[in-house]
Amino acid sequence: MRFIHTADWHLGRVFHNASLLEDQQHILDQLILTVEQRQPDALIVAGDVYDKAIPSEGAIRLLEDFIQQVGGALNVPLIMISGNHDSGARLSFASGLLAKASVHIVGKAELETRPIILTDEHGEVYFYPLPYLSPLAARSLYRDADIKTHQDVIRRQIDCINAEHPTDKRKVLIMHEFVGGAEESDSERQLTVGGASQIDAGILRDFDYVAMGHLHRPQATGGDHIRYSGSLLKYSFSEVHHHKGVTEVVLDGDGFAECLSVPLQPLRNMRIVRGRLEEIVQQARLDACSDDYICAELLDEGALYEPMRRLQEVYPNTLEIKYVVQSSPQGISGDKSFHELHKQDVTELFDEFYRHVCAEPLNDPQRQFVKTIVEQLEQTDH
Amino acid sequence: MRFIHTADWHLGRVFHNASLLEDQQHILDQLILTVEQRQPDALIVAGDVYDKAIPSEGAIRLLEDFIQQVGGALNVPLIMISGNHDSGARLSFASGLLAKASVHIVGKAELETRPIILTDEHGEVYFYPLPYLSPLAARSLYRDADIKTHQDVIRRQIDCINAEHPTDKRKVLIMHEFVGGAEESDSERQLTVGGASQIDAGILRDFDYVAMGHLHRPQATGGDHIRYSGSLLKYSFSEVHHHKGVTEVVLDGDGFAECLSVPLQPLRNMRIVRGRLEEIVQQARLDACSDDYICAELLDEGALYEPMRRLQEVYPNTLEIKYVVQSSPQGISGDKSFHELHKQDVTELFDEFYRHVCAEPLNDPQRQFVKTIVEQLEQTDH
Repeated sequence: MRFIHTADWHLGRVFHNASLLEDQQHILDQLILTVEQRQPDALIVAGDVYDKAIPSEGAIRLLEDFIQQVGGALNVPLIMISGNHDSGARLSFASGLLAKASVHIVGKAELETRPIILTDEHGEVYFYPLPYLSPLAARSLYRDADIKTHQDVIRRQIDCINAEHPTDKRKVLIMHEFVGGAEESDSERQLTVGGASQIDAGILRDFDYVAMGHLHRPQATGGDHIRYSGSLLKYSFSEVHHHKGVTEVVLDGDGFAECLSVPLQPLRNMRIVRGRLEEIVQQARLDACSDDYICAELLDEGALYEPMRRLQEVYPNTLEIKYVVQSSPQGISGDKSFHELHKQDVTELFDEFYRHVCAEPLNDPQRQFVKTIVEQLEQTDH
Repeated sequence: MRFIHTADWHLGRVFHNASLLEDQQHILDQLILTVEQRQPDALIVAGDVYDKAIPSEGAIRLLEDFIQQVGGALNVPLIMISGNHDSGARLSFASGLLAKASVHIVGKAELETRPIILTDEHGEVYFYPLPYLSPLAARSLYRDADIKTHQDVIRRQIDCINAEHPTDKRKVLIMHEFVGGAEESDSERQLTVGGASQIDAGILRDFDYVAMGHLHRPQATGGDHIRYSGSLLKYSFSEVHHHKGVTEVVLDGDGFAECLSVPLQPLRNMRIVRGRLEEIVQQARLDACSDDYICAELLDEGALYEPMRRLQEVYPNTLEIKYVVQSSPQGISGDKSFHELHKQDVTELFDEFYRHVCAEPLNDPQRQFVKTIVEQLEQTDH
């Protein structure tokens, strides 16, 4: 049994006012190509398919095309759960009929988690999809006020699964949660405020594989067979060093055998460029990937004239500028009283301000120029 | 060939702040029962499936259950188009795969209208679904600036159909438009401002049947085979005398043979009750259908104390009150100048006002009472 595990598509995501639909279309096309080439036995999407509970029509079209290609044309079984960004009811429209075409979209948690059973030469594999379920919703579903944390929810669901699962069959869990010890990024929406959202990986170990969504960095946590595939694309500048793609998982007759990262090539990469504005603009002319999404970390000291416009001339998709220059060690007369300031020479005061902004003192002609102006003003004043 | 024609479900409709989901669930259950009993060869839904472009989750669930029952369990082919209330892209999610289960949801107009072909003992019947397409969208689709009216849109689409249609095959058109000469209700949303929305029935006559949506009163227009099934429920008090239901259509080898109205029983009827408040309240105690949606037309003259509360005590779903009392023939001193009014006796003026509101003059004790108060006031005044 060989299946592809992906998650956190966030279709319809807008990043710094830029729609990513075109990038998402490109990466889904790559994924379809990957499925076509590698012919897996199934494709798993572990939640956050859409970025919003009410997705845009553009986002709906992307998903529609994808399931038409993979579920329809390529005839690869698809198992998809909702994440905390999705509306389960909206995502899983017509899921009853779609399941007949081996497209299993599980949006709504039910008391009993029905497995989707696929077979290979070693027998059956039970895939248990757990659509995202908050502790609040779980209390209502199970009529149990003692369910307080995400750990309580998942433990309850796993208990129900284990009560029914034939022990000689392999089992795969699909869920959208935050497992303790894993590394977060800036683009995930917190499941709860505080620490009650973490799951202890210990309760997941019995599964032959746990296909997780929520965290955007591909990673294993608590065991090589408990994995986040990571998001399809970089969704924040904190993710520039992630290697995005999908995970191919192999089960043999005894369960987990191995897994492999399959990289996907985005239409535009997301990068941080660092340096003085002039250097960045100069080097950009030699940069073949000038369409990438850029965060510029500027090392310039002092004020710059229209830096965003100048960057966008060379990197049209510059989305963010950060100034990483340190404040000068001494402030502007920060520790002087108003009375002292009042006594200070005005040209000297201006020189101090100039040094703060431009990190160098006035040169002689500048100093002379300022001095002349100050004298003229003082004459007018008295 | 025997098929059921319905339209204008408006799932998710809110009427006078009352959600109709429960009523819609009930009527769809009745429709499913009707399909089960009558075993038609197909079910056609001619647009305005949802009431809003972005339907509520409750409305989505109703449609999902319906197609699961009819398309899935009963295995009756379903052909559904979008109306002017629907978002075609949202309505027809996953339609490619659903079509494999004989659920044909056509939300987006394309250059070529692909027929859905069903067969009976006489051969094939071509069903041509035309999802709602505004002249603006049609101009863009056909790249033709000359498309200005709804008539232009439909004529173009019919021309395209006729160019490809094998002339010896029967053909059914499904569309959501306003055919001239038909009768409107208060609950339809105008397709355009002005008269450019009307279609001439003449261009539809060649079809063996035209299954239309948009107008809420069941009716034929321009021929017995060109029909509105009407809405599933009454959606305004202008529709209280409509007989709502679905239309069963029979085609024989030569085309249209006959059609039959199949009434459906709503959970709550929509009615107008007319009379004086006291009479209505009295009679309501004998009314077995006190849960109906009520518009009360009150004949009372003069002011009433909390009429809505009193009506809702007997008819909990009273949604509207209308006062149908006529103004008294003469107005209140309407043709007198301010100067004349000033000279008039105050008690006489009050009497005039009282007659206007209560439709009878002050009786003697009332007149005496008013007179005393006026005198006291006048003494204070001077």
